[in-house]
Amino acid sequence: MERYFEEAFAKVNTTILTMGSLVEDQMQNAMKALVERDEALARRVIENDRRVNVLDLEIDEMAIECLARYQPAARDLRFLTTAMKISSELERMSDLAENICERAIELNAEPQLKPYIDIPYMAERAGIMVRESLDAFVKADAALARKVIDDDDVVDNLTEQLFRELLSFMIENPRTITRAIRLSFISKYIERVADHATNIAELVVYLAEGKIIRHTIPPHAP
Amino acid sequence: MERYFEEAFAKVNTTILTMGSLVEDQMQNAMKALVERDEALARRVIENDRRVNVLDLEIDEMAIECLARYQPAARDLRFLTTAMKISSELERMSDLAENICERAIELNAEPQLKPYIDIPYMAERAGIMVRESLDAFVKADAALARKVIDDDDVVDNLTEQLFRELLSFMIENPRTITRAIRLSFISKYIERVADHATNIAELVVYLAEGKIIRHTIPPHAP
Repeated sequence: MERYFEEAFAKVNTTILTMGSLVEDQMQNAMKALVERDEALARRVIENDRRVNVLDLEIDEMAIECLARYQPAARDLRFLTTAMKISSELERMSDLAENICERAIELNAEPQLKPYIDIPYMAERAGIMVRESLDAFVKADAALARKVIDDDDVVDNLTEQLFRELLSFMIENPRTITRAIRLSFISKYIERVADHATNIAELVVYLAEGKIIRHTIPPHAP
Repeated sequence: MERYFEEAFAKVNTTILTMGSLVEDQMQNAMKALVERDEALARRVIENDRRVNVLDLEIDEMAIECLARYQPAARDLRFLTTAMKISSELERMSDLAENICERAIELNAEPQLKPYIDIPYMAERAGIMVRESLDAFVKADAALARKVIDDDDVVDNLTEQLFRELLSFMIENPRTITRAIRLSFISKYIERVADHATNIAELVVYLAEGKIIRHTIPPHAP
């Protein structure tokens, strides 16, 4: 591998990691904004989505330039196309953090329906999946990627459990319906963040083992 | 452009279109399964998602092989990376058709809540957006792509209108809550199909004009 190519390669890697930690911050701040009913913070998360979008475009440009200039073969080629895909997944996660904040702002208009313990816990689990999927990418660690894929079930189960609780609120007292629905949307957004981490993990398994596991696991209802 | 490359290029194009018409079928059959309460058809749509997944992987492989073999420059390079992105968008649409069918099967366990007029209409509008976004891709027609982007507002407005109607059902009669929520999920799935068509249209504008409009339009809450 040429030295210049190696540098470009490392730059793509670093930018993915920067994007990943930004997305983690976005998710953590979205939860903080929800729990502390902090509208200013929610608006800041919505604003910061732009920074993630800029990184997404940068990674695309870097990868395309690498393809054009160095015409890499085999593994390096796959690394670059995978990086482009991972950056799309991260960008969608940031959109979801933004959506969480939109619902959080709406929820502030009414009294809090219930203590928020389970939702931040779900978000924390999803956040760990994001971090580990990117660790797995950087280290080409298929075993870690498979762990992420398994962990998706935990978040799915938590979403379903919360949904049933919210349903019982709604049935008992129709005045809770709007709030319960907004909370159920938030939990769906978190579930989708975990799905995107799973997508990254599947791409990593492919990159590391050359084995396609994308599309072999039935998708969960988002 | 080499003749072989031209052939490979055309093959990618054709496969995208095949995938697109399969996704359109999936959406139409999902609506038919919902409206006619046809569980067998719903299960067939869920089953057929596999065919879309196979095409997604094929397009990726074809594009990566083209990149490795012909090392295309500039516009051809962007065409291939765009094709890979479009195929991911189509694959997600098919997942959503599958999700619609899962909810349709659940809905069959109870009497129908309301006549299904607006939901199939929304799906039809979203389907037109899918078809036109792919037409725009094949013809590199930025004007058509921009029309698709504008049309997204129609689907968003329909989703919101339906959501308000479903909310009033739930508040008036808590026994409708489960069904109303399932229907609101279905409308969200359709809204997301339209969002994916919008993503494709944004990629086409970039391909045709070299102008990035991705991320310049604020995302709608999915």
